[in-house]
Amino acid sequence: MEFVLQKSDNKTKARAGKLTTDHGEIQTPVFMPVGTLGSVKGVHMKDMEEEVKASIILGNTYHLYLRPGLEVLKGAGGLHRFNSWKRPILTDSGGFQVFSLSHRRKLSEEGAEFQSHIDGSRHFFSPEGVVDIQRTIGADIIMAFDECTPYPSTVQEAKHSLKFTKRWTQEAMDYLREHPPLHGYPQYFFGIAQGGMHRDLRKEAIEQLIDLNPDAYALGGLSVGEPTDIMYEIADYSTDFLPKDRARYVMGVGTPWNLLELILKGVDMFDCVMPTRNARNGMLFTSQGVLHYKAARYAQMIEEAIDPHCDCYTCRHFSKAYLRHLFNAKEILALSLSSIHNLHFYLRLMEQAREKIENDSFESWAHEQIQVLQQKAP
Amino acid sequence: MEFVLQKSDNKTKARAGKLTTDHGEIQTPVFMPVGTLGSVKGVHMKDMEEEVKASIILGNTYHLYLRPGLEVLKGAGGLHRFNSWKRPILTDSGGFQVFSLSHRRKLSEEGAEFQSHIDGSRHFFSPEGVVDIQRTIGADIIMAFDECTPYPSTVQEAKHSLKFTKRWTQEAMDYLREHPPLHGYPQYFFGIAQGGMHRDLRKEAIEQLIDLNPDAYALGGLSVGEPTDIMYEIADYSTDFLPKDRARYVMGVGTPWNLLELILKGVDMFDCVMPTRNARNGMLFTSQGVLHYKAARYAQMIEEAIDPHCDCYTCRHFSKAYLRHLFNAKEILALSLSSIHNLHFYLRLMEQAREKIENDSFESWAHEQIQVLQQKAP
Repeated sequence: MEFVLQKSDNKTKARAGKLTTDHGEIQTPVFMPVGTLGSVKGVHMKDMEEEVKASIILGNTYHLYLRPGLEVLKGAGGLHRFNSWKRPILTDSGGFQVFSLSHRRKLSEEGAEFQSHIDGSRHFFSPEGVVDIQRTIGADIIMAFDECTPYPSTVQEAKHSLKFTKRWTQEAMDYLREHPPLHGYPQYFFGIAQGGMHRDLRKEAIEQLIDLNPDAYALGGLSVGEPTDIMYEIADYSTDFLPKDRARYVMGVGTPWNLLELILKGVDMFDCVMPTRNARNGMLFTSQGVLHYKAARYAQMIEEAIDPHCDCYTCRHFSKAYLRHLFNAKEILALSLSSIHNLHFYLRLMEQAREKIENDSFESWAHEQIQVLQQKAP
Repeated sequence: MEFVLQKSDNKTKARAGKLTTDHGEIQTPVFMPVGTLGSVKGVHMKDMEEEVKASIILGNTYHLYLRPGLEVLKGAGGLHRFNSWKRPILTDSGGFQVFSLSHRRKLSEEGAEFQSHIDGSRHFFSPEGVVDIQRTIGADIIMAFDECTPYPSTVQEAKHSLKFTKRWTQEAMDYLREHPPLHGYPQYFFGIAQGGMHRDLRKEAIEQLIDLNPDAYALGGLSVGEPTDIMYEIADYSTDFLPKDRARYVMGVGTPWNLLELILKGVDMFDCVMPTRNARNGMLFTSQGVLHYKAARYAQMIEEAIDPHCDCYTCRHFSKAYLRHLFNAKEILALSLSSIHNLHFYLRLMEQAREKIENDSFESWAHEQIQVLQQKAP
């Protein structure tokens, strides 16, 4: 997989780069909107292209495996043809979801047995099996099946999941090498480094991964309940050991200011349900800080857009008062308009970060934004 | 208000015409999608313009009066500026909603006292007050405040609501004449003829209305529980007495085949929540009949659009299998995609009806469609 490191910031570890897949190029830093079940909740694919301008979206292997299931996805010729998304797709491995099922799953060296959260039916995910599911889905980027180390975890526990993850990653890569893509385009493979909040184990995990030489590197097991400072510190520590000529991906993070902090620490790729989930709950991210539709003062703000500096569809056409009204009246359009805005905001923030990295003004801008974006919006 | 009757069918009472408002022209027969609370549920305004191609939408006076309320609508400069819909808007009078509140309203010659369905607060709608609300909303077309005669009703009951409706219509028209529009463009006034299912009273109601000379005529109190044949019969009977040079509107109807039947009987305008409400429940209207997403056979229909002859956004991009999956997984996008399709289908049907009327082939086409559209879709 081609990853070109186009610019390294001269003051921080921030980077600007470019990933190339058969479905298109991805400029980094990049935020990848989550399309759990093959749709980004509440947002039309055409709006994902034209308004959000996403260059890649995620699909969740666990969810897609259960619904619509492999038979349908195979029949459709992969997820791209099923959901009509023309640009790249990354699928997670299902590892995180399966391990989140806690009492409904049983782990062994071979993989994980689990019960569906929908109907309780029993299933088994092996490293090879998960690669096969992702081959059927036709993801441009396949994630390794890993064991997500919980927080907190003892050194012993973290070592244990490291052992499984290492073995599974090897097996997945071997399997992928021996089984050509089903849909005629290459599928790239990202390894995942675990290690909990233990520096030594993070380093060990990364070194093991480097031996396997995946197309890019993800840091898993972050944003799992640890204090934010520890997350930043572990990411900062870890990126020092990652090869410069490969992309780095922190999974499942986070707020806009989390993203900027992690870019400062040398991370290139992000995904999170936060922009869409929070949008559906009426929480909007703006260039002036965070707002919640419920604030009574918005009822009369008939001229002001959610974000005066935003040029998304929502902000171009509608006021705070209108959006508040739609939420109040439980109109489903509120969910869609808010999701479009939040996603556009995340994507635009990554675009700006890139511009700032390119002209060596990232550090001061990022630190300022990290303050501003957390404020309460007017 | 300019209404041009452009073509009368040579075999039936069907008509093709054109209404002109400051926000644009409306070609008839026309279906007007319902935007109860200032949004057409689940459909972006841009999709209402570009995909559904609606030439006019409805707003509900009762609902908009309660939420967002007159203060906000006044501040916004009317509903067009609030919801960013640039084309014409028609508002009902709230009469139907108020009378539906049954035990929560009290009627007098002066108007109706009622309790909000949201918080139980008490309000009063008078004929003049309702005109004032619609002036604030800035509707291009204002409907008279009427008493909707229930079904069944005795001659005595129907006479009673006729008496109220006549008086209120007169008062509303007087008030509107004396109070200029608030937003700088003309607001037209449609009278409503009631009369239950009693022919004599329908005729009487229409004759009374003709004396008042409203911009157009609506038939109210249809589709309120009576057998469909009776609805058709009353509409057929009524249009014989309506002036040919004014538009005719049957409120709150109906299925696609209801619309075709009523066009045959000389009706020009329609509105109904059915295309959007049924869409949200997974029921789709197609050129091959009606389908419900739940049918198991759709799970594997990965090539077939909802309607193979439809060129709406949904049908251009997605399969029956994808839509079924979204409904199954309770993805909100299913509601939006289905609503776009159903509305597009209704609007396209009206467009086709117009073409057929223009070239004198409406009758046989309509009768064929009335059969086909009610079938179970493959």
